[in-house]
Amino acid sequence: MRSRSWIVLTDGFTTARNAKTAHGVLRYARDPVVAVLDRDHAGSSMRDVMPALGSDAPVVGELRDAVRLGGTSLLLGVATPGGWIPEHWRSWLLEAVDAGLEIANGLHRFLADDGEVVERAAGSGARLWDVRQPPDDLPLFSGRSLKVSQKTVLTVGSDCAVGKMTASLEIAAAAAAAGVRGEFVATGQTGIMIAGKGIAVDRVISDFLAGSAETLVCEADPSSEVLFVEGQGSLWHPAYAGVTLGLLHGSAPHALVLCHQAGRTAIEEPPYTVLPSLTDMRRSYEEAAATVRPAQVTCVAVNCRGLDDAQAAKAIEEIEDELELPAADVFRGGGPKLWEAVAAAIDQR
Amino acid sequence: MRSRSWIVLTDGFTTARNAKTAHGVLRYARDPVVAVLDRDHAGSSMRDVMPALGSDAPVVGELRDAVRLGGTSLLLGVATPGGWIPEHWRSWLLEAVDAGLEIANGLHRFLADDGEVVERAAGSGARLWDVRQPPDDLPLFSGRSLKVSQKTVLTVGSDCAVGKMTASLEIAAAAAAAGVRGEFVATGQTGIMIAGKGIAVDRVISDFLAGSAETLVCEADPSSEVLFVEGQGSLWHPAYAGVTLGLLHGSAPHALVLCHQAGRTAIEEPPYTVLPSLTDMRRSYEEAAATVRPAQVTCVAVNCRGLDDAQAAKAIEEIEDELELPAADVFRGGGPKLWEAVAAAIDQR
Repeated sequence: MRSRSWIVLTDGFTTARNAKTAHGVLRYARDPVVAVLDRDHAGSSMRDVMPALGSDAPVVGELRDAVRLGGTSLLLGVATPGGWIPEHWRSWLLEAVDAGLEIANGLHRFLADDGEVVERAAGSGARLWDVRQPPDDLPLFSGRSLKVSQKTVLTVGSDCAVGKMTASLEIAAAAAAAGVRGEFVATGQTGIMIAGKGIAVDRVISDFLAGSAETLVCEADPSSEVLFVEGQGSLWHPAYAGVTLGLLHGSAPHALVLCHQAGRTAIEEPPYTVLPSLTDMRRSYEEAAATVRPAQVTCVAVNCRGLDDAQAAKAIEEIEDELELPAADVFRGGGPKLWEAVAAAIDQR
Repeated sequence: MRSRSWIVLTDGFTTARNAKTAHGVLRYARDPVVAVLDRDHAGSSMRDVMPALGSDAPVVGELRDAVRLGGTSLLLGVATPGGWIPEHWRSWLLEAVDAGLEIANGLHRFLADDGEVVERAAGSGARLWDVRQPPDDLPLFSGRSLKVSQKTVLTVGSDCAVGKMTASLEIAAAAAAAGVRGEFVATGQTGIMIAGKGIAVDRVISDFLAGSAETLVCEADPSSEVLFVEGQGSLWHPAYAGVTLGLLHGSAPHALVLCHQAGRTAIEEPPYTVLPSLTDMRRSYEEAAATVRPAQVTCVAVNCRGLDDAQAAKAIEEIEDELELPAADVFRGGGPKLWEAVAAAIDQR
């Protein structure tokens, strides 16, 4: 396969919260981002537009400028209202298709269902990649994931949107910095675009959910030593707890990282179910994991969003005291500390 | 809608174990079975062929004989090798389609994917009902199921194939005999054919699993007093535990019935995970339920398959002693005893 260079289409949404897939790619993607396509910020650098992302990608106002910079793949990474591309994006989309670029679509609606796009892609040879569409030949869970040679580390959460993907990525980065060959295993659309592969497990038919997680683990690079599997949902989020449990069983982890936002006491979506104590969450995850393989919560990734440094340090200390486990905020440089705890548990120091 | 009368097609499989959907329909279906289609047993009654089913349906060798008896719906209820209809069934299938019968298909492959069947059904007006195909407009879980007027009773199991559907049906029958307006809520293909409606929750995209269970509960007959929801899988069956948990959360039960096969100590499919004690199972199900609504295990449905009556009585007594809960085998008349326990818990006596 030719190498991939991203053109990130965020026109009109570049700094918006619903561009979080694009932001994740700008921050973490395995493949380089050669340009962001946004007329409002054209001519500047992402370093100026959103310094926190740590990306120097230039912002351009025309697709052809991005192609000239070497872009091979157009990334649709904004959770747009209605789940489909805004009308003013369509001419760029078709231009990219006609130019034979790869189109990576993280939206809920699929390119494969858009007749005009499909037809023009057939003519140009453009690859249409609906990132959320799972493969159609997934197996049932069989226990193969218990036999992989790598050690598997899964992030599990108190709720959605507490930073499970980021924790997996930052701990993987710390492992890499320590000389360990790790692989980030993606289970959601942002993670898949970051990794360049993966399965959106929440889109899989329920019967094949654990089988899809198992497939991901079994198909990881056999030369890797540690797999950092991106967790999903929470056992206490009633809309998604089934996904969480299927992923936990299917991936058969050796170690868990508990992810939590400091101060969160209830699920943030209806019906706002109340969270148990962190001690009880830890026990529940460990009990559920033990069905397939004993795995302990080795540390806590504490998302301290909205707290100042002193407040964050206090929140982390309280959690360390409650659980007698290392805790840190990966958004504030805590990755290496958590990797230390994980490494000790899986004998990879 | 016109009323439905079943023609059960089991030719070559009538007494086989993989005809269990057909057997369930013969035993429990809401709509009458006017005939079984099987050339080997043509001319006899199901009373003679399989007395345990309690059905007097005649067995016929030709589809037209079944139609003459008033059959309106052809039921494909055998888990055939390969998941699709045997070649020698096809002429009956097409004859039924051309005659404008409803075709109810419980197989894994769908009639909607069979071009010839679809085309001929369009011509005759035959309804093609792929029972395992979920509706395509399912919502996410929102908590609506917490507000239904009925009391909801869910069967939960130690493993697959321990009798959860039968327990729900037999307890519902006991409730009906006691004058309570109950509704059996079907979540798998056999149950759906029995009830005439339902959703195969294991075929739903994982994201919408809890939402599909919630939809079932919210769309039950509002004049009913108690909903008996058919459980699926087991929290300890790693291939399906996600389905079990999503159904538990989505249906938001008021009471649980724990279903177990006497003597089973491990899941019967690979990787044969070991079952915890019944006491631990009860605690795990109650803890998981409590996320959305507190619900207690009110009794135990003990499947005593393979045991003689003395052995069964002993197995049931041991379970009653361990859990200090009523236990009974619904396959041996235990439905009323279990309904008593459920009724006490939900104040429906």
